[in-house]
Amino acid sequence: MNTAELVELAQQLRVDSVRAAAAAESGHPTSSMSAADLMAVLLARHLRYDFERPDHPGNDRFVLSKGHASPLLYAAYKAAGAIDDAELLTFRQLGSHLEGHPTPRRLPWVETATGSLGQGLPVGVGIALSGKRLEHGRYRVWVLCGDSELAEGSVWEAVEHAGYEHLDNLTAIVDVNRLGQRGPTRHGHDLGAYARRFQAFGWHTVEIDGHDVDAVDRACGEAAATAGQPTVILARTRKGRGVAAVEDREGMHGKPLPDAEEAIAELGGVRDLHVHVQEPPAARALHSVPTGPIELPRYDRGDEVPTRDAFGKALVALGHARADVVALDGEVGDSTRTELFGKEHPDRYFEFYIAEQQLVAAAVGMATRGWVPYAATFAAFLTRAYDFVRMAAVSGSGINLVGSHAGVAIGQDGPSQMGLEDLAMFRAVYGSTVLYPCDANQTAKLVVAMAGLDGIRYLRTSRGASPVIYGPDEEFPVGGSKVLRSSEEDLLTVVAAGVTLHEALKAADLLAEDGIRIRVVDLYSVKPVDRRTLRRAAEETGCLLTVEDHHEEGGLGDAVAEAFTDGRPVPRLVRLGVRTMPGSAAPDQQLHAAGIDADAIASAGRLLVGEAVVR
Amino acid sequence: MNTAELVELAQQLRVDSVRAAAAAESGHPTSSMSAADLMAVLLARHLRYDFERPDHPGNDRFVLSKGHASPLLYAAYKAAGAIDDAELLTFRQLGSHLEGHPTPRRLPWVETATGSLGQGLPVGVGIALSGKRLEHGRYRVWVLCGDSELAEGSVWEAVEHAGYEHLDNLTAIVDVNRLGQRGPTRHGHDLGAYARRFQAFGWHTVEIDGHDVDAVDRACGEAAATAGQPTVILARTRKGRGVAAVEDREGMHGKPLPDAEEAIAELGGVRDLHVHVQEPPAARALHSVPTGPIELPRYDRGDEVPTRDAFGKALVALGHARADVVALDGEVGDSTRTELFGKEHPDRYFEFYIAEQQLVAAAVGMATRGWVPYAATFAAFLTRAYDFVRMAAVSGSGINLVGSHAGVAIGQDGPSQMGLEDLAMFRAVYGSTVLYPCDANQTAKLVVAMAGLDGIRYLRTSRGASPVIYGPDEEFPVGGSKVLRSSEEDLLTVVAAGVTLHEALKAADLLAEDGIRIRVVDLYSVKPVDRRTLRRAAEETGCLLTVEDHHEEGGLGDAVAEAFTDGRPVPRLVRLGVRTMPGSAAPDQQLHAAGIDADAIASAGRLLVGEAVVR
Repeated sequence: MNTAELVELAQQLRVDSVRAAAAAESGHPTSSMSAADLMAVLLARHLRYDFERPDHPGNDRFVLSKGHASPLLYAAYKAAGAIDDAELLTFRQLGSHLEGHPTPRRLPWVETATGSLGQGLPVGVGIALSGKRLEHGRYRVWVLCGDSELAEGSVWEAVEHAGYEHLDNLTAIVDVNRLGQRGPTRHGHDLGAYARRFQAFGWHTVEIDGHDVDAVDRACGEAAATAGQPTVILARTRKGRGVAAVEDREGMHGKPLPDAEEAIAELGGVRDLHVHVQEPPAARALHSVPTGPIELPRYDRGDEVPTRDAFGKALVALGHARADVVALDGEVGDSTRTELFGKEHPDRYFEFYIAEQQLVAAAVGMATRGWVPYAATFAAFLTRAYDFVRMAAVSGSGINLVGSHAGVAIGQDGPSQMGLEDLAMFRAVYGSTVLYPCDANQTAKLVVAMAGLDGIRYLRTSRGASPVIYGPDEEFPVGGSKVLRSSEEDLLTVVAAGVTLHEALKAADLLAEDGIRIRVVDLYSVKPVDRRTLRRAAEETGCLLTVEDHHEEGGLGDAVAEAFTDGRPVPRLVRLGVRTMPGSAAPDQQLHAAGIDADAIASAGRLLVGEAVVR
Repeated sequence: MNTAELVELAQQLRVDSVRAAAAAESGHPTSSMSAADLMAVLLARHLRYDFERPDHPGNDRFVLSKGHASPLLYAAYKAAGAIDDAELLTFRQLGSHLEGHPTPRRLPWVETATGSLGQGLPVGVGIALSGKRLEHGRYRVWVLCGDSELAEGSVWEAVEHAGYEHLDNLTAIVDVNRLGQRGPTRHGHDLGAYARRFQAFGWHTVEIDGHDVDAVDRACGEAAATAGQPTVILARTRKGRGVAAVEDREGMHGKPLPDAEEAIAELGGVRDLHVHVQEPPAARALHSVPTGPIELPRYDRGDEVPTRDAFGKALVALGHARADVVALDGEVGDSTRTELFGKEHPDRYFEFYIAEQQLVAAAVGMATRGWVPYAATFAAFLTRAYDFVRMAAVSGSGINLVGSHAGVAIGQDGPSQMGLEDLAMFRAVYGSTVLYPCDANQTAKLVVAMAGLDGIRYLRTSRGASPVIYGPDEEFPVGGSKVLRSSEEDLLTVVAAGVTLHEALKAADLLAEDGIRIRVVDLYSVKPVDRRTLRRAAEETGCLLTVEDHHEEGGLGDAVAEAFTDGRPVPRLVRLGVRTMPGSAAPDQQLHAAGIDADAIASAGRLLVGEAVVR
């Protein structure tokens, strides 16, 4: 396409954005119009992409970080022949694939769900890392960002990491339209302000008029030709470009144009240009992954092993069996034990320093390329990345997240380092799996099982050593549980997991001395939960006492309640959890102070059983 | 103190750090030793602080962002005479005020809890904003950061905002010891790399040898004298400085020195220097806050009003009555309606652009200075700041957070914009309050009530209009609920809040047509929860059906279960919540698709009541 044709194509993208939003009676046409020239040039001149084969290994990857500009994206899909005009006009309607913000659940050409700003670039960094370090591919990653979202810290985690890793296969194009949702951005049209920031982090910068298609073309070419550093194209644009009633005006965000017909006329009317998008270069598919037999470490009963150690060693073994497993660290690999993987498989180990948003985003990016990522940090610090976890679920991304140092049991380091909200946080995520092992053999099996699941998989590990109670050949299906103590005389069932499981076993011994028999269930699969076992325990013992090293809300206690939310009669459900704000103390002191140790369980048991007897 | 004395003081801080960690058998002495000269000079020559009056309005404010270097902080407290040597040696023990990471819950001189890295500077920005824009005070804010934590995006949100706001009362001192927890940082001792980044964001930078006390002294003086921009002092240091066995060595993070006695000898032995810290200048206390009568907007029953509108208007009214109320926006003030406050009270309104971590951190910082902050963004985007919320609870901070656009009811924008995890997220936070109003009068009352509570207060508001069902004089105590439908024949209780409350009322009408009477409870106070009313409903109707526009885990359903976790018999507890991943659709279509609209409630009701009748 020549200059005139590119200009026409950009106008078509504007017109179709206006039409889609008008049909939907909602959406973000003005945010689409500012970036239309950028998109037109990228699509027609630089993107190498086979829309019929979105999984082509040679395809460039495009991420619309400013996801609210979805009308522009869908207009581009139409221009490329991937969707037709009728589908374009289903925008935002029930059942349409064209959602308000694009998601890969609905459209195969979308790499990652966006709409929460500041996500596209960090995910793009993950894809670019895969391209450069794992696939050794020639594809480029293009990320179209808004200027408002450059206020997000996650963007600067990505800018820092991309610069540090010399990701010259990554280009960010920033649509500097100077207007955010509620008004002007901090830096308005001052491209230099952005350029100084990116340059300081080691990026190549190009400043252009984003409505000059030839300038956009040259900038994209310059980006592709730049070696050794990522490039940002800073494009000065005007929001609502091309329609005087909205162009560069405040108060025009996130709504259809006041008069769509007039606007379309002003833009030169409806067009039906088709773009021939460049074919991707021939490329090898990622080697099919040989899944060999996994030789997991085997632990003897009675050994004292921290589950974080068992995680690290199992991950190493998994890495030997599966070439598609990668590990990501947030500068705590010595604590989470991912560093063991790094020593064995350095080519598949990624250090993200203390940047948990980039850590999780990179996992999402690598998962788009078929890798099976395990990203680990302290459970407490995964709270930093909750928006990325939530959005990964919107994407339907399959990633493994591992949070170590769970609960008060970590001891002296105190509450800032204690994961006490992580179970609630991960359980509330759509389609998630939440696992919380109590011993080394169980941990090893769950680390392997995670790899084969869909969605967000979370494994919670502990800092301190705990006794191995299962044999190395025991199986632990996700969604299952283990009944560790059981008799026909059980008056109570204690449901626990992780560190409290061992306390529950001790409590069972204490109560047995009093002649009180209790059932003990190891609920290692917190989500999905083993309803059948819990229901049987309820029928047979009448009362379930949950004990968790987590705040009482949203964790193990809530997971157990799930088994009884279908209208059936509910047993007595009693919770022990962390109700206080802990300080520093030794691990056993912490468990005692929180009222979740064996003594506390036994006391609660006596009380509840006494009530049962009285009843 | 002269140079020689400063050097001696720094050695004392090192020795005391080593001693404290040795006594605790844990802690971070090497991270303390690198920053000892920085701390010694700051304490002896620049900090203006009355340890006997931590609330003195003229006090400088010091934040130890690298909270793991707590031994250094406590050693400084000892040198300043705030604690004695015996207390220093209680470090990290059960019941000690000297926790592994410092918290204001235990020590009056600590501004904010740290230990999750990347928090100190954003909170410091909040304090500095208070100093500059609210108090017009002369105090300085000094934040001692680690170099590793500069990888956190939250730090760059703070750097950007401080530069933008010209916070020349803020100084960051970065202890560039080049070693993180697991190994070298990205930039090692390259001070220039950091300087370029800070300069690009508008900071004044000073690069020094952090072990040269005269250089540190000059740098602090230069920072204090710099007008119009914040200053960062980039100090090249060596981790474990002064003890050859650990100095500048990897693998020495977060553990006592291998031989404390030898180390103390190498450092010149125990000293007992006392520092006379400069008095703060005379300063006015923050004006005592006149709490006048609050003239809340009044809404008529039947009016259709979005609760986000009611929030915004109530906040304006509260701002008229209370001069200590401030509002903070994350670039969505037009959507959350905080912009109404901004128009009425521009001097107490703060724009943070799309930087939710800085948004919440600033609220924490302002709360340390006695302000009552209301920070608002979309409920979904508060997930960005979960670590800051969690740490605010560790601090015991009193802040109000408001999340708009809750649930699938927002409609076409789709899942990226829907708060569907927020109730779980906020409920799991220690000491939090979670409120979810369904009408405008209720919202107004709760906005006022929040101001007077302790801890994290969360208000969930809705995008769409809902009918006003309460009169303007109705009271809504926190921890209460409202029984809106009730009879002696009730066979079921529906518990709802916000948008689903209105669906529940419609369902009650539908069921009444079938001759089925149900009770309807408005659970506007999700935490704390009204156990008494729920228990009475359980006794009288036998079955509680919760309906929530939130994922089923950790939200309203779990809140209701809380009322029955004390061992008492549990009613049948049934949940309706969002089990699917929504797409784009109209609000009523969304409620229907999620199975939480009136039809779904009525269907569930018929089923459950049928069972009740059969039983």
